[in-house]
Order: sequence, then C-alpha cells, then structure tokens
Amino acid sequence: MERITCPVLATRRATAEEAAAHIRPGNAVGMSGFTGAGYPKAVPGALAARIDAAHARGEDFQVSLWTGASTAPELDGALAGVDGLAKRLPYNSDPTLRRLINDGKVDYVDTHLSHSAQQAWFGFYGDLDVAVVEVAAVLPNGLLVPSSSVGNNKTWLERANKVILEVNHWQPREFEGFHDVYYGAALPPHRIPIQLTHAMQRIGDPYLRVDPAKVVAIVETDAPDRNAPFDPPDASSQRMAGLLVDFLRHEVKQGRLPASLLPLQSGVGNVANAVMEGLLTSEFEEMTAFTEVIQDGLLDLLDAGKLSAVSATSFGLSPDGVRRFLANPGSYKGRILLRSQEISNHPELVRRLGVIAINGMIEADIYGNVNSTHIMGSSIMNGIGGSGDFARNAYLNFFVSDSLAKDGAISSIVPMVSHVDHTEHDVQVLVTEQGLADLRGLSPSDRATRIIDRCAHPDYRDRLRDYVARARAARPHAQHTPHLLDEALGWHANYVRDGRM
Amino acid sequence: MERITCPVLATRRATAEEAAAHIRPGNAVGMSGFTGAGYPKAVPGALAARIDAAHARGEDFQVSLWTGASTAPELDGALAGVDGLAKRLPYNSDPTLRRLINDGKVDYVDTHLSHSAQQAWFGFYGDLDVAVVEVAAVLPNGLLVPSSSVGNNKTWLERANKVILEVNHWQPREFEGFHDVYYGAALPPHRIPIQLTHAMQRIGDPYLRVDPAKVVAIVETDAPDRNAPFDPPDASSQRMAGLLVDFLRHEVKQGRLPASLLPLQSGVGNVANAVMEGLLTSEFEEMTAFTEVIQDGLLDLLDAGKLSAVSATSFGLSPDGVRRFLANPGSYKGRILLRSQEISNHPELVRRLGVIAINGMIEADIYGNVNSTHIMGSSIMNGIGGSGDFARNAYLNFFVSDSLAKDGAISSIVPMVSHVDHTEHDVQVLVTEQGLADLRGLSPSDRATRIIDRCAHPDYRDRLRDYVARARAARPHAQHTPHLLDEALGWHANYVRDGRM
Repeated sequence: MERITCPVLATRRATAEEAAAHIRPGNAVGMSGFTGAGYPKAVPGALAARIDAAHARGEDFQVSLWTGASTAPELDGALAGVDGLAKRLPYNSDPTLRRLINDGKVDYVDTHLSHSAQQAWFGFYGDLDVAVVEVAAVLPNGLLVPSSSVGNNKTWLERANKVILEVNHWQPREFEGFHDVYYGAALPPHRIPIQLTHAMQRIGDPYLRVDPAKVVAIVETDAPDRNAPFDPPDASSQRMAGLLVDFLRHEVKQGRLPASLLPLQSGVGNVANAVMEGLLTSEFEEMTAFTEVIQDGLLDLLDAGKLSAVSATSFGLSPDGVRRFLANPGSYKGRILLRSQEISNHPELVRRLGVIAINGMIEADIYGNVNSTHIMGSSIMNGIGGSGDFARNAYLNFFVSDSLAKDGAISSIVPMVSHVDHTEHDVQVLVTEQGLADLRGLSPSDRATRIIDRCAHPDYRDRLRDYVARARAARPHAQHTPHLLDEALGWHANYVRDGRM
Repeated sequence: MERITCPVLATRRATAEEAAAHIRPGNAVGMSGFTGAGYPKAVPGALAARIDAAHARGEDFQVSLWTGASTAPELDGALAGVDGLAKRLPYNSDPTLRRLINDGKVDYVDTHLSHSAQQAWFGFYGDLDVAVVEVAAVLPNGLLVPSSSVGNNKTWLERANKVILEVNHWQPREFEGFHDVYYGAALPPHRIPIQLTHAMQRIGDPYLRVDPAKVVAIVETDAPDRNAPFDPPDASSQRMAGLLVDFLRHEVKQGRLPASLLPLQSGVGNVANAVMEGLLTSEFEEMTAFTEVIQDGLLDLLDAGKLSAVSATSFGLSPDGVRRFLANPGSYKGRILLRSQEISNHPELVRRLGVIAINGMIEADIYGNVNSTHIMGSSIMNGIGGSGDFARNAYLNFFVSDSLAKDGAISSIVPMVSHVDHTEHDVQVLVTEQGLADLRGLSPSDRATRIIDRCAHPDYRDRLRDYVARARAARPHAQHTPHLLDEALGWHANYVRDGRM
C-alpha cells in the first residue's frame, strides 16, 4: 500500500545512501527511536558505511547523536561499530556503544529524558544539523503519521536544518490515531499550563508536522523494531512483584491510595513486567498507566480489561507482544496513546496525576540513596532515563533490585552508593526479594535500620550493621548520616580488586 | 489597634501558657515560620517551659515539629534547649537543634520544601495534632490575614485537629493584600493545572481560612521576626556575583535569555545578596523574581525600579530591610506577593516560568555533583530546602561557593562529594571566586577538566588533576566517570583525621 501520498514530499524519495550523504562530518544528528522502537532502520547503516569508507581514506568523520532514548544495534551499534560517534545524548543501552563510552572514546551526556527536548530548544546543545525520523506514513497534506515511538521527534523535526524521513512499511498503517503530539510547548516566558488531567486526554494532534522545504530525502523501509524478548519472571522477580502489590493493597486499605490506584509508571525490564503480571491477578480494576514504555505486561493488563488506558511515548514489546498487537491494532485504539517524551515524562504531569513510579536500580545505600547508572562508581550501565522525572514527582515511588548480583559477589545494598542518581530526598520505597522498606518520613538512621533489616541479603546484613555501629561510634557528633569515610566505598573497592565485595 | 475582630474567635483569647497546655506529649505539631519570619513568638516558649517542667518531674515529653522551613531561637532553639523534640521536618538551621541532630538525639527528616505539604496530605507523616500559626489579624468573618511568611500554614491549619493562633501586633496590619493563598490544591486523581503564568498573578485568596471549631486558643503577641543582619558582600562574593551577572549578559547576547532575563530565584545568604547587588548596577530592567525568600537585595532592586515584582513565600530581611519595608509597606503592595511554599517552589511553576535558580552549596565534585547539606559526609548543616525544587526544574541553574573554606584547609571542589543532593544530571553552572564553569551539554570527563580549570582553587588544582589522571590510568575500561574508589573520599577522611584535606 502506498504510504507516501503527499505529492510534494513524494518527489524526495531517495535511497538510504543518498539520504545519508546529507550528513556531514561534525554534524549533530537527531534520530528517532525510544527503547528499540521507531528508530530509523536504513539511514544509520548507510551513514555507518559512509563513515567507515571515510575512515578508510584517512578522513575524520564522526557525528553527535541525539535520540529519544535507547535504539538498536542497527543504529547505535552500527555507528559505534565504525567509531562514528563523538557525542551521544540523552540515553544509551547499546553494548557496543557502552563499551566505547567506558573506554573513554565517546562523550556521553546522560540526561533526564524530560529535559532533553527543552534543553535542545534552549540552545544548550548547539545547533541540530539533520533529523532522521521514522514514520508510518506521509499524508497528502504533508502531515506525518508517527511510528512506534514519538520520543523527541517533534523537537528534532522542528530544530533540524535538514530532515530525512524513513517510512517503514513494517509499522502498522493503523497507527494513525494512536498518537497525541502536543504543539502547545513554548519557551519561557511564553509557556502556559499543560491542560492534561487524565492519562488518555488528548491535548495535541495525531500527527507530526514537518516543514516540507527542509525534507531532503524520504527513504522507504520494511524492517521490524528491535523487540527484545522478555524472560518469564523468575522467582525473585515474582517475589518482588508480590511485595509491591501487597504494599499497594495496604496503602489502599490505609486510605492513602484510591481503589483503582493512581496512574502507573514502570521502568523497562523483567521486574516491571513481573509487577504487571502481579497486578493481573490482583483485585485492582480500572487502572491506568502514565509511563514511558508499553511493555508486554501492560498489554496483558489491557487485554484482561484490568487497565483502562496507557499513555506512553513508545512501545517496547517482545516479538510475541508485537504479534498480539499487530493481530488487531484497531482494538487498542482509544486505549493506547503515544506522546512526546517531554509530555510522557513531564514533572508537571507526573506530579499532577500522582503517578506510582516503579523503577529498577543498580544499588541503594543504607540511607536510601539510589544508583541507577554506574557500575562500581565509574562505568556507565545505561543511563538515568526517565527514572528521575518520575521518582522525584511521583505520588509514591519504588526502586527494585535483587539483593545480590554476580552470584552473591555483589550486594545491591551497600554502605554508600558509588554514584547517586536519586538522593535520599527522592526515594520512598525499596524492594528486593528479601523484603520491602518503606522509608517515608524516616530519618537517615531509621532508614538504615529498616533497609538492612528488610532489603539486604542475610549474607551481608551483619557486615552492614557492623558498618553502621562502627560509623556511629567513630564520630559521636556526626550522627545524622553516620559514615566511615575510609570505608564507605570499600565494598566497591574490594570488588574491583578481588571480584568480591 | 484591635486585631481580632471576629466575635466568635475573639472568645478564644488565651495566654501562651493556656494555649501550650493543648499540646500533649507525643503530639505532632505544625508551626508557622519560614527563614525566621512569621513563626509563633510566644507559644513555643510556653511549650518549652511545660516540657522542661515535665522533664523535671521525670515525665517524658517530646513532640514532632513540622514547619515551613527554618524558624528562630525562640522556636527551634527553645524546644531543642529543653530536649523537647523527637522529630523535625522539613528544614532546620538552628544551631542548638543542629547539634542535637548531629548528636543523634533528634530524628531529622530533611525534605524538599515543595514536597512537605503534599506528603503531609498524602498521610506519609501521620496525623497532625496541633497547628500553631502566627497571623497579622483575624477578620470579622474569621478569615486570617497572614503574617510575614506563608510556608505550610494553609496545610497545617487544614490538617491539624486543634489550632492555636498567634496574632502578632508587630507585624504590619497593612499585610492584608500581600498574600495569595492557593485553595485549588487537591489530592490525585483530582488535581487540575495551576493556572499561573507570571510571577505576580493571583490564583488564590489574600487570606488563610480556618475552621473556627478547631481554634482552641488565640494568643496576642508583639514581637519582631528574627531578622538576622547581613554582612556586606565581601570581595569574594562580589567576584562571584560579577561572574554570574556577566554570564547572564552573555546568555542574553547569545539569544538564550530574554533581555529582562527570566524570573530569578536565589537562595538565602550573602552571595545571593551580592548577586542582587550586582544586578542593581546592571543594564537589566523589568526583572521579576519567583523565589522562596525576599532578602534585602530584592528589596533594593524593587526600590530601584529594576525589579517589577517578587513572588515568594517569606520575608527574610535584615533589621535595616525591615525598617525600610515598615516605613511604607503600602508602596510594595502589588509588587510583592507571598504564596504557600507548595506554590512558590512548585516544579510545575518553576519549569513553566523558566526560573533562573541561584543557590549556595557546601561542595561540588569534579563531575558536577553537588552537596548542599552535609559536612564531611555525616553531619547535617541545614538541609536541602528548596534548592532541589528550583535547580531540577530551572531554565538555568547556578551553584555558588567560595573555592576554599577553613582558611584553605578545605577545598569546596573535591574528587567526590561526601553527600549528593543535586546529581550530575541537575547541575548546570558552578561558580566560585576563581571562575565559572558552564557544564551544559558536557560529558563527565569534560566537566572535570572545566571545573578544575575554572572553579578549583589553584592550591588544589594539581592534586585534582593528579587524581583524574591516576583514576583514568587505573581502570582503562571505566572511563565514563573515572574514580579511585580507595581515594575518592580521601580528602574528607584527611580532614576528619588531620584538620586538612
């Protein structure tokens, strides 16, 4: 079926190679893509080939890459594989690129996902030379039907000097009507309230706009999203999900949450999926989600009629989830809405709606500081993503992790985290397979007792208690957050040296 | 002049001692007060005397104390002095209480100031037994003219089971009309957009409401606010202010800020005052402020006609500033508006208005993490206050500090901060008397170079560079944020041990 029905834009059809030729060394390139959905499938590879050839000729060729969030091997992986990236923002989870970042070969600017679009508008990252955006169709009037993610596409299309579109036939044409692109954003002092009061409310347009004069190429593709499979929840994830759902039940009973809860946000991953599975068999009805990514667990809840609606910025389905969605996309219309990430993650909206935020973590310390990004203080894992947008502004937030990693060589509860992404002021509930620690309204000392008792693995509890006891004894007039400065990061140092904390 | 003209409430007149008798051991007490303004002047002392007498009889008597922010020796100091506090939130700067917290004798729950009211409403802190709120007058219809701060007063008056009012004749009766108390707040899922789009816009009532049935006592006082004097800006503060104002000028020139800037927020203290003094002699006109506290520097700008309007939650004037204000309060009406702190600090509004946030810090590390609260990792200084509300949501944020403390024994730029309150994701510009480091869009490694070159004191630069070089060499595949885990907090450990970093 014809997907490019705009007579003006139809004349810009090009091959991926022709399109990639518009991208020059040193350019800042804004590409679509969020959690392996909606990224361009062809131009990045063609760009990588161009870069590789330039390097073979001894020429410098690197670009700065801005996206929505993570993409896929065909994008981040391909460009990293040819040493084509000088700078990357606002998020990455590609293993090849991660290695380059940690080898010090790519500058990575890890950014709150709600900040990325506005900081580009503010001019904090400099000019954007080219946008490369995947869409599902180009309509006769030149409007664009967005693809399986919206991310920062609106901003890249508006800010870039040149635009390359990829029209992906693999994406369902039925996507038309699944999106809500807010065009009321402005720069201060001209900003106005965002008039959104429930998850499914439309405040924008179903289409992305583009200035036809800027469109230098349109490439047609037919290629699937990354669609990583999920492992079925293991016993540990199920236990964490059970603790979390029980806690929500308790909060409803105490009158601190409505019976249908408040809009759910859950990070990407197996624990998040397990929580959704836990909600599937719960008594909660008419739930909603106001989140970043639609994973299989949310689809299950929609299919079961437990969830009324999901607002997000991207799909993040498994191959099986994709099959289920594609079998009948129309049945989800009006129940799924994809928005720009500046809206899906907006502090104003997260706080107003009173989101329940559930995010993974790498480690937490005994005082409730959370590390979401760094391994042993220095190596980046992925990035902060939307966790800060949601956690800080949530009604209630949870950070979840197994209590152990690397077969017990690592405790995810430590004396002091080796990097802080969520401060003690922003962390309410910690969950491991050992238990749940409700930290609301507690002082640091009380938090320490509760976190060690409830969340730390028994193999590490005595050492954590010993640390606290010795820290308390060491400086009698420094009891607010007792620490032994020589030892606070000692567990991490041990691991780096000996492979065990 | 009669200040209590409500016939119903006039019958509740009582002495401070009679009023304090309504407060029982174990009670949670919400008192007015923000930055030494608008706190109750008489009941806290009477309560302290009651507690002291109970202790002399061998009885337990402590309360939990909730306020807007810091208060004064007559409140925090008096209650701390008799060991009368079990728990304190959301902020404190009283030296006596600070000592007790750091001795481990009071549980201190240091909280974002924009979170405190809503978390009380969410029920996260438990019930509020008594509110003790200073006002300027009680009107015939029972409405209350607020005093020199609004803080959390609306919430305490609504949440508390019993209310004690203090009517302070020292506060100008002309305060009527200086306040805007937003009564549109609700709990999720019933929240609606806050329709504020400029600093002076009224969205609420000039009065606080109280259920007359809950008012158990009204005490009349005639006592000044704390009104700490400011030191005149020293050379270092002036230098930082100069750097900051030059940077704003540069941003205007680059088209990244409007000519009249964006609404200013500045933390409390001498550097903030110096910045305001720097703006006084600048070319900027028609500025506005959307901030927490009105300090002398803002009054100067108002008096000079450089500043059109100030929205805040509290006054924080010096004795001289108070004299100037009291000489002609009416002349400031329509140019000063005091709001609840959930509004003055609201993420929704700070982000919408695009606030320029200027806050002090204790230390920053080479990667741009900022410590605003802890001395050497363990002792609390004051608290995070509103710095997180403003910095995270600002258009542009600055953290300022001298590069040295304790006669050079401490560097405020360190390898790793001993406590994180503002993460690398939230910090844009650092300023010391040595220079200004613009960190926007930089990776951690680039930040390190810039912070060391521009902000660190020359006496510490080589050691910082040496740290980075050795950290880079130590773990070749951990180059995103190079650290030596055994040494990262070594400077702080040195200081604790030897009195020098």
